[in-house]
Amino acid sequence: MDTKITLNHGAGGAIMGELITEIRKRLELKGKWEGQLDDGAYLNAGDSFLVMTTDSYTQSPHFFPGGDIGKLAITGTVNDLAVMGASAIALSLSLVVEEGFPAIDLEKIINSVNDVSRKLNVPIVTGDTKVMPKKELQGIIINTTGIGTTKKIIRNNNLSVGDKIIVSGTIGDHGAAVLASRFDYKTDIISDCAPVVGIINELSGMIKSAKDPTRGGLAACLNELADKSDVRIVVDEEKIPIRKETVAITSVLGIDPLTLACEGRVVIAVSANAESQVLSILKTKNPDAETIGEVVKGEKVILKTKMGERFLDNPRGIGVPRIC
Amino acid sequence: MDTKITLNHGAGGAIMGELITEIRKRLELKGKWEGQLDDGAYLNAGDSFLVMTTDSYTQSPHFFPGGDIGKLAITGTVNDLAVMGASAIALSLSLVVEEGFPAIDLEKIINSVNDVSRKLNVPIVTGDTKVMPKKELQGIIINTTGIGTTKKIIRNNNLSVGDKIIVSGTIGDHGAAVLASRFDYKTDIISDCAPVVGIINELSGMIKSAKDPTRGGLAACLNELADKSDVRIVVDEEKIPIRKETVAITSVLGIDPLTLACEGRVVIAVSANAESQVLSILKTKNPDAETIGEVVKGEKVILKTKMGERFLDNPRGIGVPRIC
Repeated sequence: MDTKITLNHGAGGAIMGELITEIRKRLELKGKWEGQLDDGAYLNAGDSFLVMTTDSYTQSPHFFPGGDIGKLAITGTVNDLAVMGASAIALSLSLVVEEGFPAIDLEKIINSVNDVSRKLNVPIVTGDTKVMPKKELQGIIINTTGIGTTKKIIRNNNLSVGDKIIVSGTIGDHGAAVLASRFDYKTDIISDCAPVVGIINELSGMIKSAKDPTRGGLAACLNELADKSDVRIVVDEEKIPIRKETVAITSVLGIDPLTLACEGRVVIAVSANAESQVLSILKTKNPDAETIGEVVKGEKVILKTKMGERFLDNPRGIGVPRIC
Repeated sequence: MDTKITLNHGAGGAIMGELITEIRKRLELKGKWEGQLDDGAYLNAGDSFLVMTTDSYTQSPHFFPGGDIGKLAITGTVNDLAVMGASAIALSLSLVVEEGFPAIDLEKIINSVNDVSRKLNVPIVTGDTKVMPKKELQGIIINTTGIGTTKKIIRNNNLSVGDKIIVSGTIGDHGAAVLASRFDYKTDIISDCAPVVGIINELSGMIKSAKDPTRGGLAACLNELADKSDVRIVVDEEKIPIRKETVAITSVLGIDPLTLACEGRVVIAVSANAESQVLSILKTKNPDAETIGEVVKGEKVILKTKMGERFLDNPRGIGVPRIC
């Protein structure tokens, strides 16, 4: 471990991965839970699996085009259960708020939480509220922990040679929208923040693996899938759906859009013979859905570009804090 | 709701209660979960109950005589399950850390988490790590969410006239130890931070109601029990076990020790005929355990003192932030 924690330790890339490995090494008791390095952990509970996942949301600004931190928190946690194949049965909601935080903002955030909770039919069953002095915290931090159930777990380590990789829509919209609103950059782009549970349920049985490309973006997501499945993923840059506005914003800021967070997209691995059916279903929801690559023997992630092939590395860290 | 959130909104007293009521009103979906204003919520899952609870810990200083924020987080969440009669089966651990936080401190905190996890045989199954820029967060915030199971739920609303109220040890030790270390006040007092699950399991079947007097201390705890059970609790000041050092510290600071947090005590309601047996078992664990009062018809909490009787009010708020 380095001597001090840096922003990179929370950025969703390789440096965060190293910190999490260090922490997990120290937590010796594993119990009967499995999948502890996936989006959640699961327990075989007889005729079904119980799944648990947690996330703290520090996103700033708290309100952004397409949503707010309340919508983000509930959506993100339900999505983490969804990509494991699970339907959420309950969420907890823990708020840590800065002294002086405007009550009207808190009200808006809670109303967003309620909207998503109702829409997805997932109750918020327990909570906690803390207030910190203004000089010790800026804004609001929301933790949502979710529990869900499923008859069949979808794992990150289930890719095999010949599988196709599909993404459910344009990538990086959330990160671009947040960055733009942070820097007062004028754009029409809005966050993709949305539940993916409906899509995954509809594709159930046809999916080999699924993952939401949040912190660290598509680059971190693909590297995790390749690494856990012990395969190589080859993706075609031309095929990756991305908005021109996203490219414009990341170009200005010098950020690789492939490391930018999505909050309503899912990367899906399917066997080659299921590809056309899965893609056509996805396209009815979002015409930008696209097959972007395939799984081959080897390791790591390869990006095919006009200039040739290069490794698409897991970002070490990124310089954009509080994006989720 | 007031126009701005104040420290009182997180202090565990009546003002926090009002905020939580406002929040809960806006969260419309209840699902099949019950007990949502107790220490956790529960779901009838056939032959047993599933219980879920969450808490974010903002305690500063992070290290205090008798423990640290890691021990506090795991203990507090397992205790919240225990007072509902449940044994924890899994915990989540979500860290939000200040940029620049010393890695050696994080390591100590994780080691404490591991110690309690092993001691109580409860695995940490899933987690999250975020880092916030130094100017936006001071220190570390830990969220732990716990799920547990039980055949029999213990509720806060189960007190009836004639019941006796017992406390498992001296009150306010945690709050006093934290305050003392914050103000460099020289004292031997150490936090009572400890799991109560062992005691509650041993007394299982004899307990009508149990609650850990954390934020808002004994005063908030008794008021919640009286309010939810629609009874009056009468306690005898002389009987309340408290250390002289605690009184010394609170006197200096002008704080009512009955509002000071405990993190390893439990307030138990028992029927009169079970009192002597429960108390003698408790005294084998901690000789300071004491019957402090009883349940009568009416409402609110009455404190009998040498000067006569007065209402022991639920504190509106308290001026001691980051005590848990």
